[in-house]
Amino acid sequence: MAETAREFALIARHFRPLAGAGALNLADDAAVLPVREDRQFVVSADALIEGVHFFAEDPPDLVARKLLRVNLSDLAAMAATPYGYLLTLAVPRTTPDDWFAAFAAGLAVDQAQFGLSLLGGDTTSTPGSTALSLTIFGTVAPGQALLRSGAQPGDGIFVSGTIGDAALGLAVRRGALADPSGFLARRYLLPEPRLGLDLAGIAHAGADISDGLVQDLGHLCRAAGLAAAIEAEAVPRSEAARAAGPAFLTTCLTGGDDYELVLAVPPEREGALHQAGREGGVAFSRIGTFIAGPPVVQVRGADGQALALGAGGWSHF
Amino acid sequence: MAETAREFALIARHFRPLAGAGALNLADDAAVLPVREDRQFVVSADALIEGVHFFAEDPPDLVARKLLRVNLSDLAAMAATPYGYLLTLAVPRTTPDDWFAAFAAGLAVDQAQFGLSLLGGDTTSTPGSTALSLTIFGTVAPGQALLRSGAQPGDGIFVSGTIGDAALGLAVRRGALADPSGFLARRYLLPEPRLGLDLAGIAHAGADISDGLVQDLGHLCRAAGLAAAIEAEAVPRSEAARAAGPAFLTTCLTGGDDYELVLAVPPEREGALHQAGREGGVAFSRIGTFIAGPPVVQVRGADGQALALGAGGWSHF
Repeated sequence: MAETAREFALIARHFRPLAGAGALNLADDAAVLPVREDRQFVVSADALIEGVHFFAEDPPDLVARKLLRVNLSDLAAMAATPYGYLLTLAVPRTTPDDWFAAFAAGLAVDQAQFGLSLLGGDTTSTPGSTALSLTIFGTVAPGQALLRSGAQPGDGIFVSGTIGDAALGLAVRRGALADPSGFLARRYLLPEPRLGLDLAGIAHAGADISDGLVQDLGHLCRAAGLAAAIEAEAVPRSEAARAAGPAFLTTCLTGGDDYELVLAVPPEREGALHQAGREGGVAFSRIGTFIAGPPVVQVRGADGQALALGAGGWSHF
Repeated sequence: MAETAREFALIARHFRPLAGAGALNLADDAAVLPVREDRQFVVSADALIEGVHFFAEDPPDLVARKLLRVNLSDLAAMAATPYGYLLTLAVPRTTPDDWFAAFAAGLAVDQAQFGLSLLGGDTTSTPGSTALSLTIFGTVAPGQALLRSGAQPGDGIFVSGTIGDAALGLAVRRGALADPSGFLARRYLLPEPRLGLDLAGIAHAGADISDGLVQDLGHLCRAAGLAAAIEAEAVPRSEAARAAGPAFLTTCLTGGDDYELVLAVPPEREGALHQAGREGGVAFSRIGTFIAGPPVVQVRGADGQALALGAGGWSHF
């Protein structure tokens, strides 16, 4: 961890209290992970950029929690258990100490909630907008990571929670939609990673919905060489999303940032999935079926006709 | 790995060829590390920001190699062996495909040289300047990571290679110094991580010199609760650095970006250190001694007097 004098002070004040086992108190050149014979490490990195993924006026504690949660969602998609993270912050020189304090406080809240700790990272200045990158570490029993590949023809397509809220929350932020309860804006600001569900013995394949249901389901199709047939009306939408009206249906199906899960589950394990959802505090909804065919997502509307999603009609990859 | 359509195409074209075992072909939500009972993973992250750590006009292949090498240097400091890396790129939307091609080509060169592969990451746009972050993974035999703590009174202070070239290279880039051979500019652009030296049985403590010799040696002092007494004239400088003249001595002692190693080595192992250096292709020089005292770095000039390094005389931490 390279350090200027100011960086050193920032680390000591705000980040050292977040450090866990293996972080060597953030005082060394690298962190050391434990030897584990019974677990495999799963690792992923995602960045949040000011002006692209969040707004300059967003509260720093919520930005920090979103950064952690979009990465935790990748662990959820792999059915992994959180272990720790490395954090890279590039912030303008003028960033006040209060910003770091609030940012670290947000991390502390979610570290406690999700059971992980800071392992290390880098803090630097940037002449541009704030750029945040996080590498997350989780563990799984050897060979038990849930992959995007593996869906079988006849597997049900399931999603967790409700779909489209975050994309509508972004529309709210842009003034395109009313949100009297604030529900949609909150879903955009603070996603809920679907951790703690024992999916490895239940799902054939899975991904998190970061880029939109149709696109992320498309990843499962490509990885399996199968088509997906889904019913638009079966896609679970929140009360607030339904209230937005049919003009926003496409936004819900293709918009990103939900961080729900999309899974391939064989019929005989659907009961086990619903049980796992009940124990984990999230509902799963069946929205369609994987079928033999080229790797496209076919979306059928309430009238039984293929739904046009943009210029190409069906979504092709 | 979240993907837009353009990001997907970029990954397929430029980054998938760099992917190694565990990367799941960059097509999944995370990478999976192997179970290793005989090795521990060592992890670190460092960022390079355009306008701070490199210039917009620097060749992309060299920027990529510097990004990889500053992180490899953290593995060298821990006496670890390279394994793989995650890469986060935030680049302006207007970044041409050629830039990515050159960037990936630079990574390919150093992957082959240092024996590691791409595990995953994230590519996004930024409205600001290019921000690059890399998380590096190395392995060590359990308990054998070389830490910053552990120096003992009487240990010799050793550095690898020559000190100050990179800081002078930056001065060259800023027009403050001539560099007829181009040696100093190259040392700034492309550091040489000191990997492949079996230091764990030789050094009591070590760090890489990323922030300047005095500051990084200060880290070893703080971690051990010892003072360091060094002789300015014993600090190895290249022919080009000596040609810059005495006005640049302080720059050499305090300037960053050398990515050489600074080590604490007990007298009885100095021979083994020099042997390891010969086998690894780098010379080690003794520049002073760790002594009892408060954690400061005392630098003595050729006249035997304490050298003033900035306002504070000796460097305090």
